[in-house]
Amino acid sequence: MIYVLEPFGGSARRHNPALPHLYFDDAAVTRGDGVFETLLVREGRAVKMDRHLDRFTASARAMGLPDVDTRQWERATAEAAAEWSATNGDAEARCTWTYSHGRASSGLPTAWVIVQGLSPETCELRERGVKVVTTTRGYTLTDTPEWFPGGAKTLSYAHTAAALRWAREQGAEDVLFLESPEGKVLEGATSSVIVVKPGRKLRTPPSGSGVLAGTTQAAIFELAEARGWRCRTRELTYEDLFEAESVWLVSSTRMAVRVRRLDGRKLPGGPLDDEVRELVDAALS
Amino acid sequence: MIYVLEPFGGSARRHNPALPHLYFDDAAVTRGDGVFETLLVREGRAVKMDRHLDRFTASARAMGLPDVDTRQWERATAEAAAEWSATNGDAEARCTWTYSHGRASSGLPTAWVIVQGLSPETCELRERGVKVVTTTRGYTLTDTPEWFPGGAKTLSYAHTAAALRWAREQGAEDVLFLESPEGKVLEGATSSVIVVKPGRKLRTPPSGSGVLAGTTQAAIFELAEARGWRCRTRELTYEDLFEAESVWLVSSTRMAVRVRRLDGRKLPGGPLDDEVRELVDAALS
Repeated sequence: MIYVLEPFGGSARRHNPALPHLYFDDAAVTRGDGVFETLLVREGRAVKMDRHLDRFTASARAMGLPDVDTRQWERATAEAAAEWSATNGDAEARCTWTYSHGRASSGLPTAWVIVQGLSPETCELRERGVKVVTTTRGYTLTDTPEWFPGGAKTLSYAHTAAALRWAREQGAEDVLFLESPEGKVLEGATSSVIVVKPGRKLRTPPSGSGVLAGTTQAAIFELAEARGWRCRTRELTYEDLFEAESVWLVSSTRMAVRVRRLDGRKLPGGPLDDEVRELVDAALS
Repeated sequence: MIYVLEPFGGSARRHNPALPHLYFDDAAVTRGDGVFETLLVREGRAVKMDRHLDRFTASARAMGLPDVDTRQWERATAEAAAEWSATNGDAEARCTWTYSHGRASSGLPTAWVIVQGLSPETCELRERGVKVVTTTRGYTLTDTPEWFPGGAKTLSYAHTAAALRWAREQGAEDVLFLESPEGKVLEGATSSVIVVKPGRKLRTPPSGSGVLAGTTQAAIFELAEARGWRCRTRELTYEDLFEAESVWLVSSTRMAVRVRRLDGRKLPGGPLDDEVRELVDAALS
C-alpha cells in the first residue's frame, strides 16, 4: 500500500504500488535529501507511533523541512495499516514514512507512507540471530557545525549500504560500527545495540555521537525498568560484547535479533534469552 | 529528456519527463544507494565524456554496482543531447547520469540519463561570481575500512544539502568545506577549488581525503599546462584564499565561478580573470 501525502495537509492519495510515483528531480532521488522512519505494524496498527513521530519531527526540523503535521501522518498510517490487515489479516508488516525536499521544479516537499509485508529474511533472523562483523565508519565526528543534521534519520545511507554489502560478502548479515578498530561500540547498520549483563542488567551506548537515538531501544528500556531490570546508557567497549551474557541488535521490524557470531567468534546465548524476547515482544505492542 | 537504460545492455527507452519513473523501493530513493555524474552539453553534445565515464565507472565499482557499459551510456547521452538541441538549438544544457542498486523487489539496477536546461541561477553565477561561506564537514576521515567508497560520487548528499541551505540562510550561494575551522581547504559543495597565484600559477588541493577528484579541474589544468601556466596540486590553507589573485569554484555546468565574497570578506578579481574564463571555456569544449 502506498499513500501519498500532500505536504501541507489535505487528503492522502492512495497510489498503486505497481506504478512509479517519483520524478527524476525529487531530492530523495537526486541527493538522498529527506528523512524517514520505519515502523512495525502489528494487528492492523503501527506500534510506538508517538516515539516515531517525535524522532521524525526532529529529523525533519534538522533537515530544514516544513514541520511534520503529525495528525496527517497518523491518519495516513492508520488507513494504510487497516487496509493492509483487511487483506493480510494479523500478519506483521513494515510501515515506512518518507519525507523529502521534493521536486526541484516545484520546490514542494514529497511525502508518502508505505505498508508492505516483512521480508522472509526478517522473520528468519528474528528466530536464529545474526552473524555480525565489526567495522569503523571511516570517519570520526569532530566539531559540529551549526547546520549539521546530527540526530536526523536521513535518506543518505550509501555508506551504510556499502558496509552491509561488505558484511554479506563475508557471510555475515549485519555490521556493527565501532568508533575505532576494536574500540567503542556505536550501533548496527539500522539498529541499536543492547547487551545483557549478569544480574538482569541492560546496557546500550549513549546516542549523540555517531549513534542514532533508538525508538525500539527506548521502548525496551522503559518496559524493562518497570519489570525490575537495571537499565543504563553507558559506553560499551568491544571486549564488553564478548563478556556479556548476550548481545542484541534492536530495531522496529526485526525487533531484537541476537548476535550469535561476532567477527567470526561464537557468542553463546544467555540464560535470559527467552525472557528478553518476551520483553521485547511486549515492549513493541 | 529522460532516457531509461536497461542495466545490462539493450536499447534505451525514451521516457516522458512529465511522468514519474521511479518506484517506492528503488535504492536511489530509499537509501541514496547509487552514483551519478553531471555533464555539460554544448552544441548538442556532452563535453569531456571520457573523464566522466572514467569517474562514473570507478564510482560504480566502489559502490558494488555491475560494471558500467560505457558504450551504452555514450549512446544514450548522444541521443538525449541530440534530441535536446533539435528543440533548443545551441543552448547549453545539463546532462545527469544516475545508476542505482535499483528496486528491492527486482534486485536489478536502475539507470537513466537526463538532459535539461541550465537553471537561470547557473548562468547568473557564471557572470557575477558567488558569495561563499566556509564550514567544516563535521567529521574527519580516519582509517579507511576496505568497503569504504571513498572516491565515489554517490547519491547520498543530505549533509551537503543541509550545508547549502545554511549557506543560503546567510545570503551566500555556496559553501567551501575546510578540514578544520580556518584550516585546510577541501572543496565546494559540488565543485573543486582552484586558486590563481601571481605569475600565472594555478593551485588545487589534492583529491583523496574528503576531496573528490574533479573532472573539470583536471580538464582545466591540462589545457592550462599546454598554454604555459604552472599548475600544481598542493594543500591550500584558509589564508591562501585571501592571498590569491583570485579563487574559483569549478564544476561541469557552472564551469568556473569566481568567489567574490568569502565569509563576508570581499575577494577582489584578479588581473587574469578574463583569461581564466576563456581558458575554462576552451577546456570545456
